[in-house]
Amino acid sequence: MTIGIVGAGQLGRMLALAGYPLGQRFLFLDPSPDAPAGHVAPQICGAFTDAKLLARLARETDVLTFDWENISVEALRKLPKRTRISPPIDALAAAQDRVEEKKLFERLRIPTTRWQAVDSRAQLIKAVERIGLPGVLKTRRLGYDGKGQHVLRRMQDVEAAWDALGNAPLLYEELVPFDFEVSIIGARSVRGEVAVYPLNGNVHAGGILRLTRAPFGSVALQRAAARYLRRVLTHFRYTGILTIEFFVRRGRLIANEMAPRVHNSGHWTIEGAETSQFENHLRAILGLPLGATRARGHCAMINLIGEKPTAADLLAVEGLHLHDYGKAPRPGRKLGHLTLVERSAPLRDRRARRLLSRLAPELRIP
Amino acid sequence: MTIGIVGAGQLGRMLALAGYPLGQRFLFLDPSPDAPAGHVAPQICGAFTDAKLLARLARETDVLTFDWENISVEALRKLPKRTRISPPIDALAAAQDRVEEKKLFERLRIPTTRWQAVDSRAQLIKAVERIGLPGVLKTRRLGYDGKGQHVLRRMQDVEAAWDALGNAPLLYEELVPFDFEVSIIGARSVRGEVAVYPLNGNVHAGGILRLTRAPFGSVALQRAAARYLRRVLTHFRYTGILTIEFFVRRGRLIANEMAPRVHNSGHWTIEGAETSQFENHLRAILGLPLGATRARGHCAMINLIGEKPTAADLLAVEGLHLHDYGKAPRPGRKLGHLTLVERSAPLRDRRARRLLSRLAPELRIP
Repeated sequence: MTIGIVGAGQLGRMLALAGYPLGQRFLFLDPSPDAPAGHVAPQICGAFTDAKLLARLARETDVLTFDWENISVEALRKLPKRTRISPPIDALAAAQDRVEEKKLFERLRIPTTRWQAVDSRAQLIKAVERIGLPGVLKTRRLGYDGKGQHVLRRMQDVEAAWDALGNAPLLYEELVPFDFEVSIIGARSVRGEVAVYPLNGNVHAGGILRLTRAPFGSVALQRAAARYLRRVLTHFRYTGILTIEFFVRRGRLIANEMAPRVHNSGHWTIEGAETSQFENHLRAILGLPLGATRARGHCAMINLIGEKPTAADLLAVEGLHLHDYGKAPRPGRKLGHLTLVERSAPLRDRRARRLLSRLAPELRIP
Repeated sequence: MTIGIVGAGQLGRMLALAGYPLGQRFLFLDPSPDAPAGHVAPQICGAFTDAKLLARLARETDVLTFDWENISVEALRKLPKRTRISPPIDALAAAQDRVEEKKLFERLRIPTTRWQAVDSRAQLIKAVERIGLPGVLKTRRLGYDGKGQHVLRRMQDVEAAWDALGNAPLLYEELVPFDFEVSIIGARSVRGEVAVYPLNGNVHAGGILRLTRAPFGSVALQRAAARYLRRVLTHFRYTGILTIEFFVRRGRLIANEMAPRVHNSGHWTIEGAETSQFENHLRAILGLPLGATRARGHCAMINLIGEKPTAADLLAVEGLHLHDYGKAPRPGRKLGHLTLVERSAPLRDRRARRLLSRLAPELRIP
């Protein structure tokens, strides 16, 4: 089979690298002539919204998927009816719009932050009065890695926030003073089989994920997160990998957002789980049996952001696995990640802290 | 860096898949337009002996290596002096000629079979008289997977053996009634660092490897095999992965042959070792620190020969890792392999036997 992937970033690259051993072939669509996945598979170079190129991608492949959720739902809906698209377009549409996403969480009784849609300065003031401060103003669409967000701590911040983001549909929500952040990742296959990974403990800085540890958190937390994930999977008759990110406060989960795709917080599964999230996404959309999701140890995944030490420096660290995405360095850019798989959580934490003190000395790890 | 690989078979394919996460790029040279590695990386289509294409491969890449040892040493020697070639050409030359290989083993005091070069029917008769029966007549060059071999059990077999192979330089050696077969795989880097993997226990049928179990054998056997491997690595100031296959009889090692490359008996290292043989070959030839070679469990690797069940059937087996090389089925052809990593050797053996009883019911496993 040939799998068409819209978006040729590092997620697409890792999907292809997981799919080759299964005997699959790949074709990517991405506007960048030097996209990470384009180094490892054929790529059509063009806009995600180009209806002709999307149609060509669909024609030349057996199933379409994406490594990036900010693609045109309208363009996907215009593809011939016989085109197999996984995950389902409805899930993609919900994840693209923060208001739709919040409504979905509420409909499925998944606790989330208090929120209000904002389309004018007056509505923003009303939302701040109703929900309170601190809060976050976010664009409804096209946000990722902390982009399109503005934190409000005092009433006076309304002006700056509105000036920064006011030209797009918005959402205002409470800023949750969380104890920590987690994410849950799972797959549902076209045969309806579901497999859920151990919970990930995530540390962000500047809106960008820096560190994931897994397995993480209590059994109760794992169960609750998996239960919420299954509700979304069932709701959409979902196919592929789905991720939900949560804040945890006083032992309770508060859904932050979902991603209808493989997720940065699941990169540890390449070495650290029996079957990686990338392989399970492909198994799910191809109708193959899902692979075991159990952890093979205590894992830490550290992102390489903006700059990276040489491979020689990194690989001198015993047991460290390097994933270099082949991207040119640029401030704030995810260039690669590192994974450690250790025998115990304390050992894992000690080694992760030591590595992070070199790579991101400014980061505080809870 | 871009790595040039002569030969685009499954070994080259797995080298590329191991090298992409290290941020490396690849270019292959192979005559087949549908070679396994050509599905995952760019390929120059042409003969291994084509001096112009080899020169182009060398020019467009930073270091040359090979996934197949039956390539022209003469053509490699004609490349510009500045071309980095790993493993060293001298090691390749020794491995290509069974007489040179036997002389090397003897020079390095590595026990091997009794043997004699054979260039005429009269020499064959003399060799059989001196070494005895049963024995094996083998072509000095271009043998692999049991090809170019003829077993002699009685003096009358001389005629048939000579008729089959007599038009090439030959070697006659004793047929060792071995208790079992093992292989040892290790890497030496351009910085002189050496790393050796746990011993592999191998089961062949019809000259083709069917099953590898690792770690395998006693500590004494592991130590002796590693000692012999290090002698060859040091002798050639070797760079890359080297493999030696041994017969084991009454607890003693008898070297059968060596391969100056990643080896089928090391495929279990992809999931089963901290660092795979493919990654360590690349680390070795790029001058990067070598990765840990310890096993992550008790591993079995089973080759898929000639035909293969569907991916759906195979992946329904819990914990089974599939490696499909993307090759068209053909009798005797290696189409892929399966790997199991288990908590104990008995569990591993039980699961491997069950799988093999389905895939190769004719195979007897010691």
